[in-house]
Amino acid sequence: MKITDTGNSVKKYIGIDIGGMSVKGMILRGDGTELCKDCIETGCKNGGSAMCDNIVTLINRMIQTIGGYKTDIKGVGIGCPGLIDSKNGFVVFSGNLGLKYFPLQKEISDKIGLPVKITNDAHAAALGEAKFGAGRKYKDSILVTLGTGVGGGIVVDGQLFEGGKSVGTEIGHTVIETDGYPCSCGRKGCFECYASASALMRKTREEMRADTNSAMWEKYTPETVTGLTAFEYSDTDEAAKRVVDWYIKHLAIGVTNIANVFRPEVVMFGGGVSGQKERLTLPVQKLLDEEIFAGTDFAPVKVVTASLGGKAGAYGAAALLM
Amino acid sequence: MKITDTGNSVKKYIGIDIGGMSVKGMILRGDGTELCKDCIETGCKNGGSAMCDNIVTLINRMIQTIGGYKTDIKGVGIGCPGLIDSKNGFVVFSGNLGLKYFPLQKEISDKIGLPVKITNDAHAAALGEAKFGAGRKYKDSILVTLGTGVGGGIVVDGQLFEGGKSVGTEIGHTVIETDGYPCSCGRKGCFECYASASALMRKTREEMRADTNSAMWEKYTPETVTGLTAFEYSDTDEAAKRVVDWYIKHLAIGVTNIANVFRPEVVMFGGGVSGQKERLTLPVQKLLDEEIFAGTDFAPVKVVTASLGGKAGAYGAAALLM
Repeated sequence: MKITDTGNSVKKYIGIDIGGMSVKGMILRGDGTELCKDCIETGCKNGGSAMCDNIVTLINRMIQTIGGYKTDIKGVGIGCPGLIDSKNGFVVFSGNLGLKYFPLQKEISDKIGLPVKITNDAHAAALGEAKFGAGRKYKDSILVTLGTGVGGGIVVDGQLFEGGKSVGTEIGHTVIETDGYPCSCGRKGCFECYASASALMRKTREEMRADTNSAMWEKYTPETVTGLTAFEYSDTDEAAKRVVDWYIKHLAIGVTNIANVFRPEVVMFGGGVSGQKERLTLPVQKLLDEEIFAGTDFAPVKVVTASLGGKAGAYGAAALLM
Repeated sequence: MKITDTGNSVKKYIGIDIGGMSVKGMILRGDGTELCKDCIETGCKNGGSAMCDNIVTLINRMIQTIGGYKTDIKGVGIGCPGLIDSKNGFVVFSGNLGLKYFPLQKEISDKIGLPVKITNDAHAAALGEAKFGAGRKYKDSILVTLGTGVGGGIVVDGQLFEGGKSVGTEIGHTVIETDGYPCSCGRKGCFECYASASALMRKTREEMRADTNSAMWEKYTPETVTGLTAFEYSDTDEAAKRVVDWYIKHLAIGVTNIANVFRPEVVMFGGGVSGQKERLTLPVQKLLDEEIFAGTDFAPVKVVTASLGGKAGAYGAAALLM
C-alpha cells in the first residue's frame, strides 16, 4: 500500500511488530499519519540473525515504498514478544521466537544504519493505544489485552512504564483466586486463568457439560466452542449467561485491582475478546465504579475498548522514538 | 532531644508525620543526619486549622531546638493519612482526621513561611525507607506495611510513584481471593484481609476455636490473642503453625503479585507484624522466588525487613523536598 508522501520536513518513524509467524511494519509521521505498511515472515526458525535479515528487508522495502529517502527517518522501534531488556536492547528470553540474550537492537541498527529502540510487544501496543488510539486524550492509561493470555501495558504521564529492568507489568500473572486454576507461569489462580479467551472457552465447555439442555449445543460441542460462543447465546440461554457473568466478574476484579494500584484515567481492552465492546466495558465499568478505592469522585477510571486493533503494536513501536 | 548543630552550610529539611493522635516531627540534614525530633498532639477534633496551629508550634519548637535559624531550612514535608492530592497540596479526604478538601499545604506554608510539600503517610514511609532505610542501596523499592491494615508505597528510579492523581498504590486493596473475606473498602478478598495484623489475629482465633487442645490456650483466649500469639507457639503447636503457614502463604501471594507488576529490586516489610523479621522474609522470599514471572535470573527481587520503624514517615516526609 502506497500513500503519497507529501515530502515535507516532518520526521518519519518506523514501527516493527514481531509476531511468531510474521513481522508487521509501518512508517508513520510524528502526527500518527500512516505512510505505508507491509509485512514479512518472521523466519525465526533459522535463528535470530535470519529473523533480523528479514526485518531489514521489510524496512528497506517500506523505505522504497515511500520514495527511498532514509535521511528523514528518525529511527526504528521494535515490539518483540518475550522478556525484553529495553534499556540495553536485548531479547533476554523469547520462547515464541526461540531467542535467549539476543542483541536485537544492535543487530538491526548495524544492518540498517538507523537508531533502534526495542520493547516488549504488549508494552508497544499500550504505547500505541496511548498515543494514537483510545488513550490519546489521556496521560495515564492501561491496555489489557484479552487474548490467548492476558497481557498488559501501562503508560504513566505519557511515558511507557515497564517496571524494574523493563520486565514488569505482568498483570495477567497476578493471583486473583488463591489456589485457583493452574497458570502457565507456574502460579495458581492468575488473572489470566479467568480473563483470557482460553479461560472463557474453558468455562464455556464446563457449563455446556454441566447443562446438556443449553442452547449452545445447537451449534457447538465442547470441542468446537470459541471465545464468542457464550456471548452469542447469553441473552437467552442460562448456561451461556452464567459463563458471561463469570467472565465479567473476574475481569472486573483484575481491572479494579490494577486501577487501585495505578489509578489510570482509562483502562482499554484489546485482544480478541475485546470485540464484545460495550458488552464488556459497560458491566466492568459498573463493577469497577462500585468497588474502586475511595469511590469515583476524585479520580474516576474509564473503561473503554481499544481502537487500533492489530496495528497498535507497530504504532507503539514507532512511538518509542517520538 | 537536642543534637549539636555543626552549623555548616548543608541544607536542613523538616519532616512531619501526622497520625490520628500525635504528630511526629524531625529535622534532618540532606545526608539523613537527624538533628532533632519532637512530637505534639494532633488536635484534629478542633478542625484542620487547629491541627495546623499545632503543627506550626511543633515546627517552631524544633527550629528553636537546633538554634533558631530558619534561613538554612529548605522546607517542610508532611505525610498525612487519607486520600492526598500531593500535586495541589490538598487532603482530599481523611476519615482519621475528619478532613475533606482541606488545603493543608497552603495553610502550613502561609503560617510558617517555608516551602511545603505533602503526601500520603504510607507513601512518605516508603520514600523514607527508600532513601535512608532498608531500601537505600536500591533504586526501585516497595514498602509493604503489615499493620491494622496493609499499606503500600512504591519508589521507582529513586522517585515516589503515587499513581494517577497521587491516589494509587493501594496494594492492600487488590483482591487475592475472589469472594473472600469482606474488606473495609467494600470489596471481598483483598490482600489486606489476609496479610494485616487484624487478619492474623482473626485466623489465630479461628484456629484456637477449632482446636481446643492448642497450646495457645495456655496463655491466651480468642479475646486476648495478638499478632504475636501464633508466632510465639508455631514451632511446637500445630494450630499455631497452621496460622503462620496460612499467613505467609497469602503474604507471599500479594507480594509476588506486586513484584510481577513493578519488578522492584527489593520489597520491604514494615508495620507491627514485620517485627517477626526473618520468620517472614525467609519463607516469603522462598515462595516469591518459586513463583515470580520468568524466574529470578534476570531480575531478582529481594524480600527484607524495613529498618526505620516508626521514624520512616518523618524521614520520607523530609525527603519530599530533597
